[in-house]
Amino acid sequence: MNLLLVNSNSTAAVTDRMVTVAQAVAAPGTQITGVTAVGAGVIRTHLEFAEAAVQTVTVLKEKAADQDAGIIACFGDPGLRAARHELDIPIVGIAEAAMLTAHLLGGRYSIITLGAHQAINMTDIARIYGLEARLASVQIAQISYADVLADPNQAIAAFVAAGREAIIHDGADVLILGGGPMAGLAHQIELLVEAPVLDGITCATKLAESLVACGYRTSRKGLYQPL
Amino acid sequence: MNLLLVNSNSTAAVTDRMVTVAQAVAAPGTQITGVTAVGAGVIRTHLEFAEAAVQTVTVLKEKAADQDAGIIACFGDPGLRAARHELDIPIVGIAEAAMLTAHLLGGRYSIITLGAHQAINMTDIARIYGLEARLASVQIAQISYADVLADPNQAIAAFVAAGREAIIHDGADVLILGGGPMAGLAHQIELLVEAPVLDGITCATKLAESLVACGYRTSRKGLYQPL
Amino acid sequence: MNLLLVNSNSTAAVTDRMVTVAQAVAAPGTQITGVTAVGAGVIRTHLEFAEAAVQTVTVLKEKAADQDAGIIACFGDPGLRAARHELDIPIVGIAEAAMLTAHLLGGRYSIITLGAHQAINMTDIARIYGLEARLASVQIAQISYADVLADPNQAIAAFVAAGREAIIHDGADVLILGGGPMAGLAHQIELLVEAPVLDGITCATKLAESLVACGYRTSRKGLYQPL
Amino acid sequence: MNLLLVNSNSTAAVTDRMVTVAQAVAAPGTQITGVTAVGAGVIRTHLEFAEAAVQTVTVLKEKAADQDAGIIACFGDPGLRAARHELDIPIVGIAEAAMLTAHLLGGRYSIITLGAHQAINMTDIARIYGLEARLASVQIAQISYADVLADPNQAIAAFVAAGREAIIHDGADVLILGGGPMAGLAHQIELLVEAPVLDGITCATKLAESLVACGYRTSRKGLYQPL
Amino acid sequence: MNLLLVNSNSTAAVTDRMVTVAQAVAAPGTQITGVTAVGAGVIRTHLEFAEAAVQTVTVLKEKAADQDAGIIACFGDPGLRAARHELDIPIVGIAEAAMLTAHLLGGRYSIITLGAHQAINMTDIARIYGLEARLASVQIAQISYADVLADPNQAIAAFVAAGREAIIHDGADVLILGGGPMAGLAHQIELLVEAPVLDGITCATKLAESLVACGYRTSRKGLYQPL
Amino acid sequence: MNLLLVNSNSTAAVTDRMVTVAQAVAAPGTQITGVTAVGAGVIRTHLEFAEAAVQTVTVLKEKAADQDAGIIACFGDPGLRAARHELDIPIVGIAEAAMLTAHLLGGRYSIITLGAHQAINMTDIARIYGLEARLASVQIAQISYADVLADPNQAIAAFVAAGREAIIHDGADVLILGGGPMAGLAHQIELLVEAPVLDGITCATKLAESLVACGYRTSRKGLYQPL
Repeated sequence: MNLLLVNSNSTAAVTDRMVTVAQAVAAPGTQITGVTAVGAGVIRTHLEFAEAAVQTVTVLKEKAADQDAGIIACFGDPGLRAARHELDIPIVGIAEAAMLTAHLLGGRYSIITLGAHQAINMTDIARIYGLEARLASVQIAQISYADVLADPNQAIAAFVAAGREAIIHDGADVLILGGGPMAGLAHQIELLVEAPVLDGITCATKLAESLVACGYRTSRKGLYQPL
Repeated sequence: MNLLLVNSNSTAAVTDRMVTVAQAVAAPGTQITGVTAVGAGVIRTHLEFAEAAVQTVTVLKEKAADQDAGIIACFGDPGLRAARHELDIPIVGIAEAAMLTAHLLGGRYSIITLGAHQAINMTDIARIYGLEARLASVQIAQISYADVLADPNQAIAAFVAAGREAIIHDGADVLILGGGPMAGLAHQIELLVEAPVLDGITCATKLAESLVACGYRTSRKGLYQPL
Repeated sequence: MNLLLVNSNSTAAVTDRMVTVAQAVAAPGTQITGVTAVGAGVIRTHLEFAEAAVQTVTVLKEKAADQDAGIIACFGDPGLRAARHELDIPIVGIAEAAMLTAHLLGGRYSIITLGAHQAINMTDIARIYGLEARLASVQIAQISYADVLADPNQAIAAFVAAGREAIIHDGADVLILGGGPMAGLAHQIELLVEAPVLDGITCATKLAESLVACGYRTSRKGLYQPL
Repeated sequence: MNLLLVNSNSTAAVTDRMVTVAQAVAAPGTQITGVTAVGAGVIRTHLEFAEAAVQTVTVLKEKAADQDAGIIACFGDPGLRAARHELDIPIVGIAEAAMLTAHLLGGRYSIITLGAHQAINMTDIARIYGLEARLASVQIAQISYADVLADPNQAIAAFVAAGREAIIHDGADVLILGGGPMAGLAHQIELLVEAPVLDGITCATKLAESLVACGYRTSRKGLYQPL
Repeated sequence: MNLLLVNSNSTAAVTDRMVTVAQAVAAPGTQITGVTAVGAGVIRTHLEFAEAAVQTVTVLKEKAADQDAGIIACFGDPGLRAARHELDIPIVGIAEAAMLTAHLLGGRYSIITLGAHQAINMTDIARIYGLEARLASVQIAQISYADVLADPNQAIAAFVAAGREAIIHDGADVLILGGGPMAGLAHQIELLVEAPVLDGITCATKLAESLVACGYRTSRKGLYQPL
Repeated sequence: MNLLLVNSNSTAAVTDRMVTVAQAVAAPGTQITGVTAVGAGVIRTHLEFAEAAVQTVTVLKEKAADQDAGIIACFGDPGLRAARHELDIPIVGIAEAAMLTAHLLGGRYSIITLGAHQAINMTDIARIYGLEARLASVQIAQISYADVLADPNQAIAAFVAAGREAIIHDGADVLILGGGPMAGLAHQIELLVEAPVLDGITCATKLAESLVACGYRTSRKGLYQPL
């Protein structure tokens, strides 16, 4: 099975890390192909997110031949609805995938991410996915994007602190790591917070495989009905 | 006062009609400047909407000098959050403006629009705006975009039929015309359905004026906090 | 355009202040006429609110001749549904007006008001308006009605403290001043909390003007259908 | 035990019927005292409802001496919050009482009532009570107030027709009779629709007795905290 | 009237205490018969709760002859839906009964109970009952089941501490004691927290009596429709 | 990988069919072991469901040695919370699995199932899972359990009719087959309704594999915290 993983930001090193994480949990016969979108080196603002939506769908359309499913590997899933509308193969976003998986492991999940404006924005994304009922909170890790990339240990410490706040103060029992740059660090954080810590890349890879294995395709009624 | 109205599709004739509608309700000292985005001639699909978001914000940023507020004149408000994040002037989208205004005139509103996929999509937009509690339904007018542009009388008939369904079957008492091409036709429809029929251009123009008159600016805390 | 502003309490000095605030943001051709209801000098309890509802509608009906729209200038909007049912002109309440306007400026709003019982009551009012999805919290300013009237500086300090709590603790990015006696103090508070602070009188004045300019009338289907 | 039943409209014959219904289910030692409010002969419009709120609380305060609990016997419960705030004895409204009782008997309840504007208004009342999650619908019986009073058989037929619509179309399994004039007719309707049909007078009488027997009093924290 | 009270755990001493509490508020002619289920001595885990559901319904079916209504006396109401489906007499659960009663006494209620996993679980039970809109919080008393049974004074202190947290921090104005072992202690806690403290046994007894007095039966449409 | 599939009813032929469906989508290295619970031959009533909860957890505990994850193969997922609390391996229920998967394929899903009481009950199950926001409806296929087992073609026709109603009338774009006896018939129905039709066995198998592949375990904080 071939899965096309699109990193919505333009940093190839992040794409490589994402592919490594995805391949690590993929079934033996699954081949992950990573592609890097053109655009901002990191997706932080609402505008960068809007631009990433277009770039991501553009790349997916260009590279979809011979692929069985697509993964949008940017937390927040830029272009998810457009990609599902445009492409014949199933499309999975890493934020939605992690939120869905969280439902299987506990009773309330929190998202730990970067950027103060995301506290409301990520809540709204959960809401538009219809997955806010079990969202305990969005916690913002107190660290910059630059420091996350430069110093993984500092990133882990900041995410652990925010995660503990989510568990103790907000009543979460499952955590989601939001933010592509955190790919690959979930397990280390999990050992420190003693609750499941979900990596969207991991979750999306398995959900994409699942859809392909079952032969499920995006509906052409309703939300994704063609013109 | 100067208001910048961006038509998110690339059809200049529609922009002209929108400006006429806006100017008709504007206060004496208000000058509406219409600009037409680069891109699709009409915004229908999820992808065209995603592209329109970027185009709309791009145009707003280019033309905002000496403007007091911006209006995103495409039903669904592509780029609304990004525009509010990027620009110093208040930004009003015609869909949100109409939904807000509906609250002042009745107890349940319905959106009448085009495109089968919009039944779910517009409900989700109301939901992400926090305005779904008083949404009675989204009704899809049984007419194509092409026919709306070619034959206003047929468009009116289709919207009246869908509006009556919303009132009688779904319990709506206020209707919103969704779809830029319907700009200017609200009053004729209102006479036939005997309930308020809101035009987003009209509503957005007055709300934009209101924000400017009161000196209200987009918050720089929370959802629109800068990096 | 003529707007009839009814102060639901019987304190004429408050009415005068409200008219001043309204006139300050009104369009050049708008004439605000303030009237003072008969009844309690300040509206605090549930019973005073119920009595104010009747008094407010009574006054609106008496004075509506030659008026283009009515404003209920008491936070909580006593008599709003009855006024819309009884009068032909559009009616705007200052609480609903401020809540609607808040949606244009940020992602979560808080109401800062007086009276411990209002923490639940104002939440319920937002809920019945269908505007609770973006309500972050209701914060009670720690000051008495008497002190608000006697010492505006102390009032400002109490509202600033409560507003900061809303922003920092509850995640609000827009604040609404609840309470007629606070009319005119929003701007000073805004400078201190560094987030938009909405005055319901201001918001209602512009929304009333907007409805009149657009020719929108209360629906006679649904919630306001005559017998 | 003494229960004070206030009929919020001014029709003494309706009060008498209500007392008969209440006394029929009351415990042996319970004495029901009916009083008739000053005001409209029947409560239909939003304004009549607002006036009834004041009249009802006024009467309750006048007659509460030696009473153990009060019943607001007008569907919609005018003045409920004010009465709970003002009086030391527990207060039960017939609409809230019926909605609460419905939860014990089935999975979804519908309200059958009079007046087209009540379809939205009663839904909002359920919503403000926090009891809308199990509300299936509000159905409007196709009969006038005058005919209900003049011809009980016609009233029964109209309510049965609306009730069947609620059961078959809206999925309700419990019905509530809304409207004071329907007091005493629930059992006949129940036989025809083959589902529980709740009379608010009946439900409120038993809930009022229950609160008194348990010694429960309205909280003086939160919503009903004194000034 | 005969009421059958089933203690879902197997501790007969708790059953006796529950019957005493129920009989204390019952009407003169009401006879409470307590029965003790076979199974766990205390119901704490999800599995013990699932087992208690079956045991409770089994006992209700065995002992229902000549009974007018049944009470499930275990907080969380194991087997409630099955009991209503299987038995002809009305069935009341103590958790649902207390939640319904709370609506009559204040604006937001909190549940004080034992067992860390109940914070989410009890919220979900309120949710499935359609009674979560007025739920302020679930607070876990910091005491073990063993200590509750061994030392009522320590239990009272722990529940008072949790209740104060609910009132001050969560905005509750009514408290519900969750947990069968707390039967009979509500009044002492109420004196200390100065807000209504509801005992589910008490509430359920009166609601069961009410249903019987009114002749209301579980609907056989909808949720409890026979095969 | 070893997956333990528990058929909660006692009909071994159904177990065999379920295992066949599961094995068909499983990864090459996955071994499905089917076990049949003791108890009712088919799970229809609330009581049979309560009994199935206990039986299912009992069987899971007995057979879990050397298993990597467990699947509860009865629509409605009897014993799901208890199983997650009691067992160390991840547990997936077929109803929750199908509901989660539906989010990836469309905008609104409907459940097609048997038994009139399930229309409300399945809605409540979606609600307690936090997955009701995208639930369009529950449609009851007009066919008996006996006929489903006896005549698959008649079953398919009944489910297709109900599914078309969900798509056309309720706005669904994804359908879920509820009811263990329907295992294996999804694809034939899908061809007729022209929208994705999800089989819970299929979805649960892939989600169970996914959790195992990622090393995710049930949280021991929050909802599943041990005593």
